[in-house]
Amino acid sequence: MPETVSPQIQKQIAAPLTPTWNVIPTTPEGWKEQVNAGYQATMKSLPALREALKVKVEPVTLDGVKAYMVTPDTIPAKNRDRLLVHVHGGCFVSFPGESGTVEAIYMAGFGGFKVLSVDYRMPPDHPYPAGLDDAVTAWKAATKMAKPKNMAIFGSSAGGNLTLAMVLRAKQEKLPLPGAIAPGTPMSDLTGAGDSFQTNGMVDNVLVAYGANCDKRAALYTAGRDLKDPLLSPVYADLSGFPPAILTSGTRDLLLSNTVRVHRKLRQAGVEATLQVFEGQSHAQYYRDAGAPETKEAFEEIARFFDKHLGK
Amino acid sequence: MPETVSPQIQKQIAAPLTPTWNVIPTTPEGWKEQVNAGYQATMKSLPALREALKVKVEPVTLDGVKAYMVTPDTIPAKNRDRLLVHVHGGCFVSFPGESGTVEAIYMAGFGGFKVLSVDYRMPPDHPYPAGLDDAVTAWKAATKMAKPKNMAIFGSSAGGNLTLAMVLRAKQEKLPLPGAIAPGTPMSDLTGAGDSFQTNGMVDNVLVAYGANCDKRAALYTAGRDLKDPLLSPVYADLSGFPPAILTSGTRDLLLSNTVRVHRKLRQAGVEATLQVFEGQSHAQYYRDAGAPETKEAFEEIARFFDKHLGK
Repeated sequence: MPETVSPQIQKQIAAPLTPTWNVIPTTPEGWKEQVNAGYQATMKSLPALREALKVKVEPVTLDGVKAYMVTPDTIPAKNRDRLLVHVHGGCFVSFPGESGTVEAIYMAGFGGFKVLSVDYRMPPDHPYPAGLDDAVTAWKAATKMAKPKNMAIFGSSAGGNLTLAMVLRAKQEKLPLPGAIAPGTPMSDLTGAGDSFQTNGMVDNVLVAYGANCDKRAALYTAGRDLKDPLLSPVYADLSGFPPAILTSGTRDLLLSNTVRVHRKLRQAGVEATLQVFEGQSHAQYYRDAGAPETKEAFEEIARFFDKHLGK
Repeated sequence: MPETVSPQIQKQIAAPLTPTWNVIPTTPEGWKEQVNAGYQATMKSLPALREALKVKVEPVTLDGVKAYMVTPDTIPAKNRDRLLVHVHGGCFVSFPGESGTVEAIYMAGFGGFKVLSVDYRMPPDHPYPAGLDDAVTAWKAATKMAKPKNMAIFGSSAGGNLTLAMVLRAKQEKLPLPGAIAPGTPMSDLTGAGDSFQTNGMVDNVLVAYGANCDKRAALYTAGRDLKDPLLSPVYADLSGFPPAILTSGTRDLLLSNTVRVHRKLRQAGVEATLQVFEGQSHAQYYRDAGAPETKEAFEEIARFFDKHLGK
């Protein structure tokens, strides 16, 4: 147990492995049941989280795509004409509906930004490209609500994958690009490549190991397609022309490699890209406890990065 | 064996553990013998390295402190009035004399900078503060050779520790500060704290594990002093007012935690600080193979950072 992190993060490090890390449903109904259990648990936690972070959440629709507008009680003047778009994590299958707003609430609360959190369609009913299509549709609609240069896209895990894939699609379709992005511990390589799948296997207590539950969910999304397709594994994409990016990971993160690989690829492509790695943290533990100083630090760092790169 | 790195880095990952990683001499003579073996091996490799990187190396003396001036054959115009100061690694005991110039040769060659590499005194004959005193004396002398704002201090491992400690001493003694620093995988915490001592133990094939040979060498340097003294473990220092810093590590690095902890502390202190973490690399493997694309990438990234922050 490292003494080099806050008591809140120590508690996360001491936590047992995610109970379902290797419990693999065998039918669509089985998956829906597992996803629903997570949904119910998260929904219960949301009122206290919204109160702690002082935000309100309202359902909206963007050209037919469901989303939530997360609005902080207080918005600094410099952020009044800014808007963030959030794509949630959950290995492409979990956190439907309002249960996907958790990270958006953290960002809105700690950063003082309005955040649109996209409730994109997911497997087992809707494999790729449904979710990405929804995210791109939401992005297009959102660019009519603020200037694209005043906007950022962010999200962690599967949301980090989708953040990168949205920018790729925007490049391909010649849509406006955001002024900055924040892919957190992105599932950037679904092929299983990435050294920390080995070195942090059974060390990360969130995802635990490659090929377990999270990757089985991702397989429902990719549904037999070529996993080296850059829209599925963006680490293989041409990242030139990407907006400034800030990436976040932890030393125990199973996706540490797939975070730093994207960081290096962005830098190789000449993109302004910043990396923050938190001591002792497993996958995406930076938005688990609103009271942990590391949580505030992670989101305030992202907020400063956005403030530096977004128009007003 | 990760496919996500170059063949050259794959070869380093496949290499056996450092043969002496846990071979601990019991007498000063025993240490000197072990150090001398490393010295001889490194000296043999230097002519080819200097030729590959196109630099020349000349011994100099700076107010009584021995050093080497490393000069690239070609110096870009923008670097003519710039000067870097290098403090070598080796766990405070290894790489005396010219064998300490390896990283300086890489930096001079890939970056096109003149580099002064300090041959500071070391244990077993000279424990702390002799080495740091020499480094500070060399810094003072060097600031008469170029404008301090046109200068950077850099070094890896023990050299990363000394880089940070030199800036602390410069702050304390009100000496001019450099325009930027590059502490590579710094031995920033000699107390044994740092989560990656656990998670990357026996994964890192260079240092291998905490408490082994490298830490025994560090103990000859600290010689019974309080290891939480910020001049020995700079992660415990007040880092406010530090110059812009770029830190380098690898996902397998035993000192990954002690690199990212310094990065976070610098950011918390409001310092512009950048982190680069290389896929699959153990401790300081970014200056082992001049032909690895990752080596060029690491030093060119540091060179760009210096170019951005140093005066001309």
